Amino acid sequence: MSDTKTLTGDPFIRGLFESLLKRRLFYTEAFEIYRTSGSLHSDSRGLFDYGPPGCALQSNIFEVWRRHFVLEEDMLEVDCTILTPEEVFKTSGHVDKFEDWMCKDSKSGDFLRANHLIENVLEARLKGDKTARGVAVDDTEKGDAKVDAKKEKRKIKDIKAIDNYDGTELGELIERLDIRNLDGNNKVSPPVPFNLIFKTTLGPNSASPAYLRPETAQGQFLNFKKLLDYNQNTMPFASASIGKSFRNEISPRSGLLRVREFLMAEIEHFVDPEGGKKHQRFNEVNNIQLNLLDRATQLSGKTDLRNMTLEQAVEKKIVDNETLGYFLGRIYLFLLYIGVDKSKLRFRQHMANEMAHYAADCWDAELLTSYGWIECVGCADRSAYDLTVHSKKTGGSLIVREPRLEPLKIEEWQVDINKAKFGPTFRKDEKSVEAALQALGQTQREELSEVLKENGHITIQVPGTLPDDKIDVSKELVSFEKRTIVQNTRDYTPNVIEPSGIGRILYSLLEHVYWHRPDDVARGVLSLPLFVAPTKVLIVPLSNHQTFILVIRRVSQRLRQFGISCRVDDSGASIGKRYARNDELGIPLGITIDFDTIKDDSITLRERQHETIDNQEVWDDIFKRLPEFISQEGDD
Amino acid sequence: MSDTKTLTGDPFIRGLFESLLKRRLFYTEAFEIYRTSGSLHSDSRGLFDYGPPGCALQSNIFEVWRRHFVLEEDMLEVDCTILTPEEVFKTSGHVDKFEDWMCKDSKSGDFLRANHLIENVLEARLKGDKTARGVAVDDTEKGDAKVDAKKEKRKIKDIKAIDNYDGTELGELIERLDIRNLDGNNKVSPPVPFNLIFKTTLGPNSASPAYLRPETAQGQFLNFKKLLDYNQNTMPFASASIGKSFRNEISPRSGLLRVREFLMAEIEHFVDPEGGKKHQRFNEVNNIQLNLLDRATQLSGKTDLRNMTLEQAVEKKIVDNETLGYFLGRIYLFLLYIGVDKSKLRFRQHMANEMAHYAADCWDAELLTSYGWIECVGCADRSAYDLTVHSKKTGGSLIVREPRLEPLKIEEWQVDINKAKFGPTFRKDEKSVEAALQALGQTQREELSEVLKENGHITIQVPGTLPDDKIDVSKELVSFEKRTIVQNTRDYTPNVIEPSGIGRILYSLLEHVYWHRPDDVARGVLSLPLFVAPTKVLIVPLSNHQTFILVIRRVSQRLRQFGISCRVDDSGASIGKRYARNDELGIPLGITIDFDTIKDDSITLRERQHETIDNQEVWDDIFKRLPEFISQEGDD
Repeated sequence: MSDTKTLTGDPFIRGLFESLLKRRLFYTEAFEIYRTSGSLHSDSRGLFDYGPPGCALQSNIFEVWRRHFVLEEDMLEVDCTILTPEEVFKTSGHVDKFEDWMCKDSKSGDFLRANHLIENVLEARLKGDKTARGVAVDDTEKGDAKVDAKKEKRKIKDIKAIDNYDGTELGELIERLDIRNLDGNNKVSPPVPFNLIFKTTLGPNSASPAYLRPETAQGQFLNFKKLLDYNQNTMPFASASIGKSFRNEISPRSGLLRVREFLMAEIEHFVDPEGGKKHQRFNEVNNIQLNLLDRATQLSGKTDLRNMTLEQAVEKKIVDNETLGYFLGRIYLFLLYIGVDKSKLRFRQHMANEMAHYAADCWDAELLTSYGWIECVGCADRSAYDLTVHSKKTGGSLIVREPRLEPLKIEEWQVDINKAKFGPTFRKDEKSVEAALQALGQTQREELSEVLKENGHITIQVPGTLPDDKIDVSKELVSFEKRTIVQNTRDYTPNVIEPSGIGRILYSLLEHVYWHRPDDVARGVLSLPLFVAPTKVLIVPLSNHQTFILVIRRVSQRLRQFGISCRVDDSGASIGKRYARNDELGIPLGITIDFDTIKDDSITLRERQHETIDNQEVWDDIFKRLPEFISQEGDD
Repeated sequence: MSDTKTLTGDPFIRGLFESLLKRRLFYTEAFEIYRTSGSLHSDSRGLFDYGPPGCALQSNIFEVWRRHFVLEEDMLEVDCTILTPEEVFKTSGHVDKFEDWMCKDSKSGDFLRANHLIENVLEARLKGDKTARGVAVDDTEKGDAKVDAKKEKRKIKDIKAIDNYDGTELGELIERLDIRNLDGNNKVSPPVPFNLIFKTTLGPNSASPAYLRPETAQGQFLNFKKLLDYNQNTMPFASASIGKSFRNEISPRSGLLRVREFLMAEIEHFVDPEGGKKHQRFNEVNNIQLNLLDRATQLSGKTDLRNMTLEQAVEKKIVDNETLGYFLGRIYLFLLYIGVDKSKLRFRQHMANEMAHYAADCWDAELLTSYGWIECVGCADRSAYDLTVHSKKTGGSLIVREPRLEPLKIEEWQVDINKAKFGPTFRKDEKSVEAALQALGQTQREELSEVLKENGHITIQVPGTLPDDKIDVSKELVSFEKRTIVQNTRDYTPNVIEPSGIGRILYSLLEHVYWHRPDDVARGVLSLPLFVAPTKVLIVPLSNHQTFILVIRRVSQRLRQFGISCRVDDSGASIGKRYARNDELGIPLGITIDFDTIKDDSITLRERQHETIDNQEVWDDIFKRLPEFISQEGDD
């Protein structure tokens, strides 16, 4: 699959790239010292620690997210708990539906995620891997098996059709293609569902089961009414949250792309479902051109991208509404700002049966990596699903009550009951009869009103009454009247548009900005934009003389005072080598401390990539903040 | 206990204060909508969500931490996983020792934390609460019971002696004083230990138990070698981490002060144990005067504070070493910077039996609140404990190898074995005999060398050899030689000094900055410093005229562009009332949009508290960043 290219057009070699990231401590497998010693079960994989550059990069990416989305639109940021009582996820549907299909290796007992198993086996067969062809297929059929694999592979590749298969479909495919575990060639059990939320218990006894949230959203929904109140009852508004979420992946592979614990930024934009979900600032993004892979294209089995402006996409109803379109545009701007390669970015619409159980529509911003197209930022229309189910379950109000500009007048048939006579007549059945009358629809009421006028009584169904669940009601006891009702307020449950970014952005971005010099393949370069670069400035002294040490300390303290991170390389290597070595950390700026610095405090400021940084404001900012440094031209 | 005062000297009323925090959505009990509906078990308490102002305040406090500690000292920030395999916490001692003592109500089955139970009952008895006096004490003994309670209470109060009691001691106290559950007056079971780490499972089968970390430290320790390498093998250095930790409190009370999930900032400063743990920058803090409550004072049953400079404290060995002292000073500066009331801050040394199982010495920065003195930032010397146990368990190297400036020469008795004859002589016992010889100490080797010279052979103990675990070795097979060894490197396991700040800072700080105007008791004011205030600027338009709306939007967009958060209050209330109302959110700056603004773009900038902000640079910063606004004198 690693047919992607680096920035300079060379083939991307994942081994070299990953070796850089681990060597420079962008990340490391968590508890590696335990894993190396053999004291950890293989089930404990899928957990990664971020070292200093990875941690800073992650926190910069999410800080840009915070400024770009949360601050810019005055969203209400909240920090809700990760621990969540079972009741909440029962209501949201996660306890029942948040699951993947898994198979068990018949001999080793290893668990495998069914769709990944099939994909991997088919891919291996395409490559001619003999161990992957299944024992049922003997040599004469080998050609067929390959053709078969190719056919299936094409079906499930790119558009990820297999992600939509249910257990029966996956099982059928495993059976028909004789899919086995690549590791040992053993048969596997039919797929069974496995719930992905981590379980634990609150308090000392087992009466209060709880889960680690798989998304930050539920806490935001449960606080909706309070947030609306904090927002002075003004709609629309958005809440936002940045925090860890957890998913108990069946058999995590793919390094940082499939992990059990990850940082997540989620926005819940609450909008009135009436009026077509317009957005006030849509005009700021309507000219942005996106590469879209819509549902219709995928249904036809294709992956061709349609390039169009957001205005066109909303007009043609490819993107359902302005609010969804607005956030697609904002996500696009965010991704470009942090350094994503525009040519490796597409927006893919979810298939109807692929969407999460709560979603009404969903688009993913996908980034092309050596693992294929990877979902990095989702944008879902969750409709009124969550607010409705939680409100129904708890009886709590999660609605908006708005004054109507024009009072609404409705004509309505009402049921009038003669209370004084009603009770004595029906005695113990009084409540059931009244409930049955109130349950009648408008049309029924109108019809029964006629019957009552003609016959003087009506017969209605009242379950549980003797002898035959039917009751006669006379006109002395009930009447139906048509009246005009005036409503001054309107109650509605808002719909939710949810842009949701996850930790995978970090890995995919790193692939996009990675390249290497033709003469130095082993040493990579990360062309990270200034704002997200983990370390902003490399300080390189020309000499190791004692006088330099004090200057270095002064310069670096001054930078840190302004919140600018820096790293000193005072090793004996040549200036050029030191810069090259620190290219691997993606440091965009360099300061050379030379003998002039000692004399007159001047330094050489150097922009590392000999390229112009897009955002001129950034450069201006730096110079403004470092007024006492005189900049010279870099000459390295 | 609420005998603390507000900023203006009025008695602090917790009810009013908490009502403010909840009303203005600083925080709320998590899942309140579920709790209200009665569908949550009472065991699910101790979980809180931060609303917009609480979330921003929390993130500002930790951002100051990051700049004050991490960036200022070039610490290596990492982000390690919360999920941790059981093996790691077995080694660290948490699985065995991270526990509290709990009692069970004999009738209701409720669990109670033993030390809190005793404290609460004694306090209730002192107040004369009849239900708290125990049934064994009849009316005639009532006086005695009160005297008893007073005596015990004094013993355990303030210096928190009871936190050091073990299960037997707690049980004895419960028995002797007839301590019962205040809720129902039932007897309670003897205390049993309860482990506070949340348990879960990684992957689909139960072979890989894991825990949610109760501190961020372990991940930093496990990565020590990689971090040292990233730091170009230079000592000393520190790693740091800001993230969530979890503790399964037995029966959480006290609102935000005892929660099951909290944000934590931890620094692990690695230092050479030799040379007295000096710190290069100690001279920057040595004149700071701290209020210390040291171990000796507490042992004498007193709580008097000793005020002295850090230099004196280290000189007198009250604070063990410079590095510990340096961080106490830095913690002091941090707390003052974020707005803590200096008169409500003390540093308390842990008693020997009170310290966590890993600590060699420990000081807590405690803040005085209506709940008493609350531990908010710890500073522990964890010695070489953690690195040693993990290294021992895994066989992985967690040491520093340093070149010696002067090679170290050691005289050493070495064992020389004649391999050619040794094997044939001892056959299957060869390895055991050799091991026994190598296990001999230096003195033994010297002595045996004499014996060998005199007798021509020696007799040594070799367990497992026939007939009597003794073996004769002749001088043809072995000799002992004294030689001079030169060591060019030194290996050592660093000690760890750990400043560790937790979410409780937020609540305690809010109590410190809270007050109310004499004529408006119900409406509070939070005097938060500019840097930590959740919202920086309140925008108040003088009119609701259409022309104002555009100006408001322009001003607030401009502020947000600079990362300055703002809130608009365009309600119809008077300017003064609007300012007062937003005092509850601790907004330090105000901008009034008046008719001049519409004319000539001038605004009125107002510093809300009519006090001088300490840090002039902050003001300068604001004006620098808002160059196009002309400031006028506020006249509200």
